[in-house]
Amino acid sequence: MNFLTSTILGFMRGRGNLQMDVTTREAKETDLQLVRKYTVETGWTIVLSESERKQLDKEKWTKHILEGFEKLSKRETDKIFVAEDENHAFLGYLWVGEGSNMMTGLKHGYIYDIFVKEEFRGKGIGKILLEKAESYCREKCYSRIVLMVSVSNETATRLYDKMAFKAEQTYMAKALN
Amino acid sequence: MNFLTSTILGFMRGRGNLQMDVTTREAKETDLQLVRKYTVETGWTIVLSESERKQLDKEKWTKHILEGFEKLSKRETDKIFVAEDENHAFLGYLWVGEGSNMMTGLKHGYIYDIFVKEEFRGKGIGKILLEKAESYCREKCYSRIVLMVSVSNETATRLYDKMAFKAEQTYMAKALN
Repeated sequence: MNFLTSTILGFMRGRGNLQMDVTTREAKETDLQLVRKYTVETGWTIVLSESERKQLDKEKWTKHILEGFEKLSKRETDKIFVAEDENHAFLGYLWVGEGSNMMTGLKHGYIYDIFVKEEFRGKGIGKILLEKAESYCREKCYSRIVLMVSVSNETATRLYDKMAFKAEQTYMAKALN
Repeated sequence: MNFLTSTILGFMRGRGNLQMDVTTREAKETDLQLVRKYTVETGWTIVLSESERKQLDKEKWTKHILEGFEKLSKRETDKIFVAEDENHAFLGYLWVGEGSNMMTGLKHGYIYDIFVKEEFRGKGIGKILLEKAESYCREKCYSRIVLMVSVSNETATRLYDKMAFKAEQTYMAKALN
């Protein structure tokens, strides 16, 4: 590979173009073990703030999250979509449900979670999952799709910016000790 | 007033020092008419995003907000505190209630709304109301106090920064038309 080719491939990779054939489908019962595992992992390391982790016992928190997952993800309004490659290997997932905005009274699609396996990041898989969620939300006639992203999660924030999500509110917290 | 005095007063004003005697107390039934009025005004102009306003009929939305206010603010966990001057003139209010974090399962104090009348802004009244809410949340043994602020509301964001609130999450939305 010469310098130019390597630059072009780097450029393509940087733009999130795919080096593989990715499809999305609804999660099956057999996917849920992986989904649960990654929900717990990323919830603890990425979604929770340091001040929240300090207040929690990880074992009790894991139980709380898994109970919530069982209860919420089985609602009729909720869908988990899985991304897989041409050999049906699991690449990532997205969980979307229905929320309602207290201020407006309007229902919207709410993205609870989006996850891509570390070795497959930067290849446009998150974008494909988000497009799937958007088309699901259009089918459900939601006028908006919303999500919360940790301020420290720059990779996810860049993806949402690129997909034309706009920051509207900031969730701020203060520990009282 | 000489130059030096005026500079010092300007400096004090800039630092949010008070030129008046401010006290806080729980709202009475007679305060609620003003609280409702400002909740609707600031909700429409400051809290809602442009894309949300476009989707709403202002009259129907006002009815929705006032119904929500009646229902939510009367819960046992909710308090509305009013700030007043030495002549008992209404300067602003703060509404605090109880929330629970889906990710952590922990209860927290949640600030629904904070408002200071335009002519009294920049005098530290928001800070006094927030301190009142914090002490209420400590009494209730909440380990955290949280709030949402519009990304465009720089005045409020500056106040929360100064009061040691940390930005943890961003609420992002995309209109689907």
